[in-house]
Amino acid sequence: MTTPTLRDVALIAGVHPATASRALNPLTRPQVNAETARKVLRAAESIGYQPNPIARSLKTARSSTIGLVIPDLTNPLFPPIVRGIEDVLNAAGYNAWIVNTDNDPDREETQIESLRSRQVEGLIVATARRNHPLLVQLHAQGVPMVLVNRRVDGLDLPSVTADDDTGIGLAVAHLVEQGHTRIAHLAGPQGTSTGVSRARAFRNALLDHGLVNDAALTVECGYWSESEGAIALRKLLDSGTTFTAIVAGNDLIALGCYDVFAERGLHCPDDMSVIGFNEMPFLDKMRPPLSTVAIPQYDIGVEAARLLLDTIEEPDRHARSILLAPSLVVRSSTAPPLSR
Amino acid sequence: MTTPTLRDVALIAGVHPATASRALNPLTRPQVNAETARKVLRAAESIGYQPNPIARSLKTARSSTIGLVIPDLTNPLFPPIVRGIEDVLNAAGYNAWIVNTDNDPDREETQIESLRSRQVEGLIVATARRNHPLLVQLHAQGVPMVLVNRRVDGLDLPSVTADDDTGIGLAVAHLVEQGHTRIAHLAGPQGTSTGVSRARAFRNALLDHGLVNDAALTVECGYWSESEGAIALRKLLDSGTTFTAIVAGNDLIALGCYDVFAERGLHCPDDMSVIGFNEMPFLDKMRPPLSTVAIPQYDIGVEAARLLLDTIEEPDRHARSILLAPSLVVRSSTAPPLSR
Repeated sequence: MTTPTLRDVALIAGVHPATASRALNPLTRPQVNAETARKVLRAAESIGYQPNPIARSLKTARSSTIGLVIPDLTNPLFPPIVRGIEDVLNAAGYNAWIVNTDNDPDREETQIESLRSRQVEGLIVATARRNHPLLVQLHAQGVPMVLVNRRVDGLDLPSVTADDDTGIGLAVAHLVEQGHTRIAHLAGPQGTSTGVSRARAFRNALLDHGLVNDAALTVECGYWSESEGAIALRKLLDSGTTFTAIVAGNDLIALGCYDVFAERGLHCPDDMSVIGFNEMPFLDKMRPPLSTVAIPQYDIGVEAARLLLDTIEEPDRHARSILLAPSLVVRSSTAPPLSR
Repeated sequence: MTTPTLRDVALIAGVHPATASRALNPLTRPQVNAETARKVLRAAESIGYQPNPIARSLKTARSSTIGLVIPDLTNPLFPPIVRGIEDVLNAAGYNAWIVNTDNDPDREETQIESLRSRQVEGLIVATARRNHPLLVQLHAQGVPMVLVNRRVDGLDLPSVTADDDTGIGLAVAHLVEQGHTRIAHLAGPQGTSTGVSRARAFRNALLDHGLVNDAALTVECGYWSESEGAIALRKLLDSGTTFTAIVAGNDLIALGCYDVFAERGLHCPDDMSVIGFNEMPFLDKMRPPLSTVAIPQYDIGVEAARLLLDTIEEPDRHARSILLAPSLVVRSSTAPPLSR
């Protein structure tokens, strides 16, 4: 036997389905003639009709809202991405609700649950870790989702990221041209796809330039933050390994190096060159202005929002990943090594 | 005659109110014996009982969610405030949904409407303009609300702001001590309480130090932004007025001055001193490191969240405004004028 539908109820009660629907909902029942309402309720009971709460919520509570899940709003990378996302969503009649997880998986789970309980129509997620059971589960439940800046291992979700290979390639080539041969990498957390792909791109770029890849010259940071960048550089300097330039996993890690340069009396770029990644705001005003790999942050947001709207409209479309091309921005934190 | 209640329905039907409630809701009706459900529906109809949708939403849809309304996430002032708000809310079992209005009143209205349609339990609003009909209306509707960093003229809402008078007083006193007598003010937008109170504090501080308040030395910026700061300073320099120091309405306006110094070949601080307001991140790494008035951003968030939770629990408590004390941070963008 098939599940009874609203149409069946309406047919038995001899009313229009819209009338049957109003009669079945206590909030709208007063709009219906009392005798009719009774007929509808009796009909519904006679065939065991149960309103479908999911269908009801889709009908009455389409939210026109998207949730943005951000790991750390104090990272200046994210606000321009958010702006790109919002401009596309607003133009399409959607609102964006932003939640900030502070890199805390428990907080993330609660936040996403709260968004879903309010029927957001999809999620744009910038918190992805390579191993991320919550996102795997949401994907299995059919939640429209787009990843931004990060990916999850083995999960075919639409994503928008910068082309890390090309970006790190540009950074290493720039340092090699300046004459550096001992180049260190302060890598981002290896639990994130971005951390891994940049570290891998760094190794490949050294090989491309015929340089030895000394494992001692790569140190992993616990977070994408200034303080973790400083910790990693202190560790590297204390190890006694020699190097004249640093490719930082991102700009915040590079700015953490500035603190250590000051502590240790190192002059940048004479004693040590450093290059960042992202082109966060205000780098041109730093002392020294930070060389970096610029990624099109606003456009990453724009593309992510478009992908999500596509996914909502056409859920079965094959997952696409979009890579956006980065570019080199040379400022004064990189220069030829003094000792060459 | 008083409005019939659920208790009345239950009494007439001879059932427990919880049973009556389940019978009246089609989603839960199957949990009730069919004969009982019919009795309840008949009883409800006989006395004209209508379920109260607001009471229902309070019961079934208490969201444990607060909306944060932010004017511009790319202003680095806001993320630390957001973090303070979230830490308090999360500890109290609440989630925060952030919306970014991009200083656009239409976007703000849509965003706030979307938050309210999802039953957020209160709002923390950082977008307030002095004349803000939407906030006046929300307040009249009894929406629990706390203003942060800004206030609305003539509206008694709880608010948390920095003590602008004291902060600007510290900045002016510092410049006067250095020997400056011709001090300019690049004021924030005068449609915001913060813009007005800092400009007023500036005038008062000049008087306190026996300096002439030359109206030509104050220029208003259209937004709290670098680009508007640059525009205002160009205007001031082009006017031919002489001055040796600038009190900027906030740090972004001060950083906009750096761009103009570079354009016009002015050396900071030798040719021109400038001091900001807020102590946004990374100022210590700027060229030159920016002197500023630090406000306790995280604590502003903490206090705002506490005020809102108080307001939700005790709606009739008299509105309180909290002023947090700022402090002077002297770096290298302020020095004695060369010509003294």
